[in-house]
Amino acid sequence: MDRFFRNRKVLITGGLGFIGSNLARRLVELGSDVLLVDSLIPEYGGHPFNIAGIENQVRVNISDVRDVHSMRYLVQDRDVMFNLAGQTSHMDSMEDPFADLEINCRAQLSILETCRRYNPGIKVVFASTRQIYGRPETLPVDETHLLRPVDVNGINKMAGEWYHILYNNVYDIRACALRLTNTIGPRMRVKDARQTFVGLWIRCLLEGRPFEVWDGDQRRDFTYVDDAIDGFLLAAASDSANGRAFNLGGDAPTTLRDLAEMLVAINKGGRFEVRAFPPDRKRIDIGDFYANFTLAREVLGWRPKVGLQEALEKTLAYYREHLPRYV
Amino acid sequence: MDRFFRNRKVLITGGLGFIGSNLARRLVELGSDVLLVDSLIPEYGGHPFNIAGIENQVRVNISDVRDVHSMRYLVQDRDVMFNLAGQTSHMDSMEDPFADLEINCRAQLSILETCRRYNPGIKVVFASTRQIYGRPETLPVDETHLLRPVDVNGINKMAGEWYHILYNNVYDIRACALRLTNTIGPRMRVKDARQTFVGLWIRCLLEGRPFEVWDGDQRRDFTYVDDAIDGFLLAAASDSANGRAFNLGGDAPTTLRDLAEMLVAINKGGRFEVRAFPPDRKRIDIGDFYANFTLAREVLGWRPKVGLQEALEKTLAYYREHLPRYV
Repeated sequence: MDRFFRNRKVLITGGLGFIGSNLARRLVELGSDVLLVDSLIPEYGGHPFNIAGIENQVRVNISDVRDVHSMRYLVQDRDVMFNLAGQTSHMDSMEDPFADLEINCRAQLSILETCRRYNPGIKVVFASTRQIYGRPETLPVDETHLLRPVDVNGINKMAGEWYHILYNNVYDIRACALRLTNTIGPRMRVKDARQTFVGLWIRCLLEGRPFEVWDGDQRRDFTYVDDAIDGFLLAAASDSANGRAFNLGGDAPTTLRDLAEMLVAINKGGRFEVRAFPPDRKRIDIGDFYANFTLAREVLGWRPKVGLQEALEKTLAYYREHLPRYV
Repeated sequence: MDRFFRNRKVLITGGLGFIGSNLARRLVELGSDVLLVDSLIPEYGGHPFNIAGIENQVRVNISDVRDVHSMRYLVQDRDVMFNLAGQTSHMDSMEDPFADLEINCRAQLSILETCRRYNPGIKVVFASTRQIYGRPETLPVDETHLLRPVDVNGINKMAGEWYHILYNNVYDIRACALRLTNTIGPRMRVKDARQTFVGLWIRCLLEGRPFEVWDGDQRRDFTYVDDAIDGFLLAAASDSANGRAFNLGGDAPTTLRDLAEMLVAINKGGRFEVRAFPPDRKRIDIGDFYANFTLAREVLGWRPKVGLQEALEKTLAYYREHLPRYV
């Protein structure tokens, strides 16, 4: 795989974001020619500091994936696109469903049309989400589980994923999707819970404030960001991935209460409050979720390597050093 | 049910179209206050002649469901909305995916947001499609079958359907969806195959030209339009339908070759040619499809009453009389 990415021309949409910037770091190590596209919309995941130290080894282009013209130019000479730009907040998708639709549906279709017309040889790996499954009927959830999204974001991401599968099947634009579960690690958004609630927990913890755990009995799985990146690289390099969607996953599932206790223990201090769900969040909550990632293991050879304890330690260590940059 | 619709204020989007206009006729008989909204886009299903004879018993408003302002006004005092407006052509959705997205995704979201804000007590029945299932893995297809659409239209209709389910579940806008299979009958589009290939077959037959059957071995099911209308009325009147999507279906499945032969026999003459699929159609074809409609039978008490032979006879008889209006 190392050889696959050497001198490879790579585009990452959402390249200044959490996963995008970590992926950029790995690709720089592997010797890729890395182009990052990000809109830096303040409510989303992009942050210039996320590429501190590699600024001179990547090219950064500030533009929005809804901007058809810039995308048309930027996509042209690329071998691989990691398509990570997206609106991720479930609550925001309910408050402004049209912005979510423009980014997670229309822009995705537009990116794929651009590839079809100007760079049909490109390989695209799309960042999808376990959110499209909605409330699981059976656990762990594998890819044969019905998609029954419970919020606007889930519906639009479902459409966005399927555009990729469709363009692979109909137009031979090689594309596949990874359905990410809770991904955690350095450079995730911690300002608020728009990307992941764990971000906000860590911020509160480091600021010495109690954080809120809603319900607490939900069981969830977590992927450390480096493992997620392995998934993206493997999917990009594998032609067997084309036209398919793969769950990523993690260690055995943990209740959110146990997760909160682990964080407090690793931090050697801190406090959280278990509360009932606010009603507007409860109605779009998916309850227990953890993924079966057998398909990714079998087809991509992917498995998570970093356990939850270590993932939390590394994440906390990063924000202990850099929190002021992010809040 | 007759009592349910008496004096009921009903809105039909796509009201001058095939199913919409037949539904309007039934509702006029039942004594409803009927408002029809249609854009009359020439490539779509709407046709003024479809309401010949009931013009003075319905109100017609020409506007597009993408027009947020007109929809906001029109929806306000309605008890029930039959939401039938849509782009239906699979090929057109591939050639102009953005128009399909605007109508089948964005406008649907916008209609539901309008209901939420200005008429949350409304009941909405959405016309979905078996197209969202894609190529069936098992037959007959029931509602537990994965949604794996094979064209842009299928993806966007899938999103459109799920917005309805979501607004039901989250905002209590009572909504449900009917997944229609091939629906046939008087007032369907016969000018071309944009709505249904059967329309074009009938046109050719009546014009004394051979029609083309692609492949011919695909097995499909057919619903006569009056039966589909029963489904819409039952779904509107039933609170057990809320938040759910139901397959409609028909008689035992028929191969397209057998269907062609039935048509020629009923017409007492005519000719068709069996051809290979054009490549651009083949790649988005779903192969065999027929629906299991047990759920609709159990929850709505729906079953098809008109067999395929009778459905074709009635349809041919209508176009034998009115073809010039439609071509």
